[in-house]
Amino acid sequence: MFGVILAGGSGSRLWPLSRELYPKQLLNLCAEKSLLQSTFERLNKFIPSENIISVTNTKHNANIRMQLGELSENSIIISEPISKNTAPAIALSVKYIIENFNKDEIILVVPSDLFIEDNEKFIQTIKEAEEFANKGFIVTFGVKPTYAETGFGYICFENNKVKAFTEKPDTKTAEAYLQNGYFWNSGIFMFKASTIMAEFEHHCPEIASILKNINCSDKSISFNEFDKMPNISLDYAVLEKSNNIMMVELKSDWKDLGSWKSIYEVSPKDNNNNVFIGHVLDKESKNSFVYSSSKLVATIGLEDTVIVETEDAILACKKDKTQDVKQIYETLKEQHDGTQKVHKTVYRPWGFYTVIAEGKGFQTKIIHVNVGQKLSVQSHNHRSEHWVVLSGMAKVVLEGKDHILSPGHSIDIGVKAIHSLQNPFEEDLEIIEIQKGDILSEDDIIRYEDMYGRA
Amino acid sequence: MFGVILAGGSGSRLWPLSRELYPKQLLNLCAEKSLLQSTFERLNKFIPSENIISVTNTKHNANIRMQLGELSENSIIISEPISKNTAPAIALSVKYIIENFNKDEIILVVPSDLFIEDNEKFIQTIKEAEEFANKGFIVTFGVKPTYAETGFGYICFENNKVKAFTEKPDTKTAEAYLQNGYFWNSGIFMFKASTIMAEFEHHCPEIASILKNINCSDKSISFNEFDKMPNISLDYAVLEKSNNIMMVELKSDWKDLGSWKSIYEVSPKDNNNNVFIGHVLDKESKNSFVYSSSKLVATIGLEDTVIVETEDAILACKKDKTQDVKQIYETLKEQHDGTQKVHKTVYRPWGFYTVIAEGKGFQTKIIHVNVGQKLSVQSHNHRSEHWVVLSGMAKVVLEGKDHILSPGHSIDIGVKAIHSLQNPFEEDLEIIEIQKGDILSEDDIIRYEDMYGRA
Repeated sequence: MFGVILAGGSGSRLWPLSRELYPKQLLNLCAEKSLLQSTFERLNKFIPSENIISVTNTKHNANIRMQLGELSENSIIISEPISKNTAPAIALSVKYIIENFNKDEIILVVPSDLFIEDNEKFIQTIKEAEEFANKGFIVTFGVKPTYAETGFGYICFENNKVKAFTEKPDTKTAEAYLQNGYFWNSGIFMFKASTIMAEFEHHCPEIASILKNINCSDKSISFNEFDKMPNISLDYAVLEKSNNIMMVELKSDWKDLGSWKSIYEVSPKDNNNNVFIGHVLDKESKNSFVYSSSKLVATIGLEDTVIVETEDAILACKKDKTQDVKQIYETLKEQHDGTQKVHKTVYRPWGFYTVIAEGKGFQTKIIHVNVGQKLSVQSHNHRSEHWVVLSGMAKVVLEGKDHILSPGHSIDIGVKAIHSLQNPFEEDLEIIEIQKGDILSEDDIIRYEDMYGRA
Repeated sequence: MFGVILAGGSGSRLWPLSRELYPKQLLNLCAEKSLLQSTFERLNKFIPSENIISVTNTKHNANIRMQLGELSENSIIISEPISKNTAPAIALSVKYIIENFNKDEIILVVPSDLFIEDNEKFIQTIKEAEEFANKGFIVTFGVKPTYAETGFGYICFENNKVKAFTEKPDTKTAEAYLQNGYFWNSGIFMFKASTIMAEFEHHCPEIASILKNINCSDKSISFNEFDKMPNISLDYAVLEKSNNIMMVELKSDWKDLGSWKSIYEVSPKDNNNNVFIGHVLDKESKNSFVYSSSKLVATIGLEDTVIVETEDAILACKKDKTQDVKQIYETLKEQHDGTQKVHKTVYRPWGFYTVIAEGKGFQTKIIHVNVGQKLSVQSHNHRSEHWVVLSGMAKVVLEGKDHILSPGHSIDIGVKAIHSLQNPFEEDLEIIEIQKGDILSEDDIIRYEDMYGRA
């Protein structure tokens, strides 16, 4: 069996903790591991890691590689050059499996932000589904509804046979669905590679034909071809049209962590039904969720309120309005605010950096280089850099000459000077970088090696 | 006439904007100028600046000097070495006036955090009071109550003659006071120097006798003598015992800005009755106060809520609970949290600095030196410093040698090296300072000149 993790989403409704460049699946809100990591481990209980494929966007590749690298050396990451919804992502991974393995492999497709605690019942359900998949059906996983949720799609079925998929309903329709025994659509699918490929060819020949021109064997997909893909979900492209679909009931617990309210609901609470994470000092609040990532958050007498503090943005929201966070995110995007896009702390394969101060013509970062890591050899056309070692030892190669710097020592990197920062030592390296220049952009970089995202 | 501004308070209820070392009177929440500056300007309309005395605590001296220095060169600041409530502060300033001027001078005493907009009516009231003061009365200023406030003291009077002062009442008592025609006590007083001195001698001989041993002419009061002063308000020490007190009605508007709720009330509001200050992005909030000092604060659907964001602490509070902020402040103080004590941005007579990052063995500041200013000549026993010029030009005197640094240039200040940072140029200077050492404390400083707080 192969597992496909759909890890391209942006999770705008968990802003400001999730960002365009650090989406929901990378967060570890409800567990020690991130949602992506937990999803990977869930599949890895019955699928070998080299058969697990994460399909994501190029912009998330470095972070996903880092997180999955902590769990396994040999899982596969396919990077889309641009986001195109689930149908193209699934088609890519199916083609990859057919080309590199076998057209009759069974494939389990899961979202990367699933929250499931009862893995045993999950595995039971998978086994049940596998029988249907082996017989050539597309299998969907239904969740028995507990209330008339308007934020999910529903499945109408009879004796496992799916009769119809429905869109997110209004409250009245949702209540009727509940009465009629419809199930929630979990977004999990299973099929043989050959089954779904035939379905694509039949119901969405556009995707099938573009797919023929894409070379999936190198995992890094050409923009020119992939950009032609329609922006369409598997539901629209295939499921709503196909007559060949079964549903099995997902017997484990299942939570869609799509909002701060749902994060609140799955978190352990204190006696006043509050969830406090981080440095929070409270007096008499009730039914509230307060998340502090770095600073003191003092709360008094709040009720049904969500407060989320991050380095550069704070959210304060009535708990029943947390779906509207998406609109704040969209507004910020329209305003080119940047706050919806990045955190001040940015993770890289070699470590991470935090922007600690910015002003006219300068930017200051703390750069953390993990043991044994190095940044690419590079130069900048518009800025000079000044590095001061805070802890650990730095090896700096500047214009071909090596410098070893210990804490407190500094070095100037002139505009256009070719340089590399390395940590070949046995302790993590922390430096302060002061960039100066008229143009201070992550794009002002010429790399001389490591073209694959190492810096 | 002399004016005495009582500027020693800490304003814990406006935390996190006010701090132990940056109290309420220094804030400019409701106007371009701070409460202290507005109070000074109000008095300065009818009292020459050299006759206005601000009594404060040594720890606030530098900030108060800086703020008043923007308005006048020659006002007087008396620094108490320790806070002892209003009676000792008033006694000190009265003695200063008697020793340096005349025992029959009229003195107007005002709190530093008064919010009055109608200065003309204020001056009318002062003139009316002056007649009573000239006749040897202590004059208090009463405010006609508009509701049964439990947070103020009340004055019982008949034909201007004060019959009794009362403590902050409970709701039922406050309602009775309103019925009986009592006025709020504004905390403003007027008297001849000789009048109040005689009252001290009669009703509080302890203060009068300690006062004899204090030399007020040098404005910086000896701790050993002043520490003996009782911690007592003028109300307790004199007013409640004296038979010699008149009340005039304060005819101007009058607001006690003692809580975030009261700041909300005096601020202009939008159509949904919100007050938004700074970088706030809102969706459908009502009757709320949101203050952002630096970061984006996004709010959704809040009602009657106060959010105050500062560099290192965030307050989120129901609007009718803002009196309880004082308890958060006290808790932080007990926990030696530090957050109640200082802001990360600290103002100095020569400019200001902001701590932008701290970690094991290092601290990073942005230091802003105003045009023409310099820091004292100093050295440190436990830390080295590394300075990088961001903008402007720096003159650094290091071990007797001058260095002129332009943007991007840096200099190392070794442990124990004698150094001074100066800005004799025509543009503000901004540098990044990276301190390194096992002990990083503002107290690790040896000064070689400018012993009066210049650094």
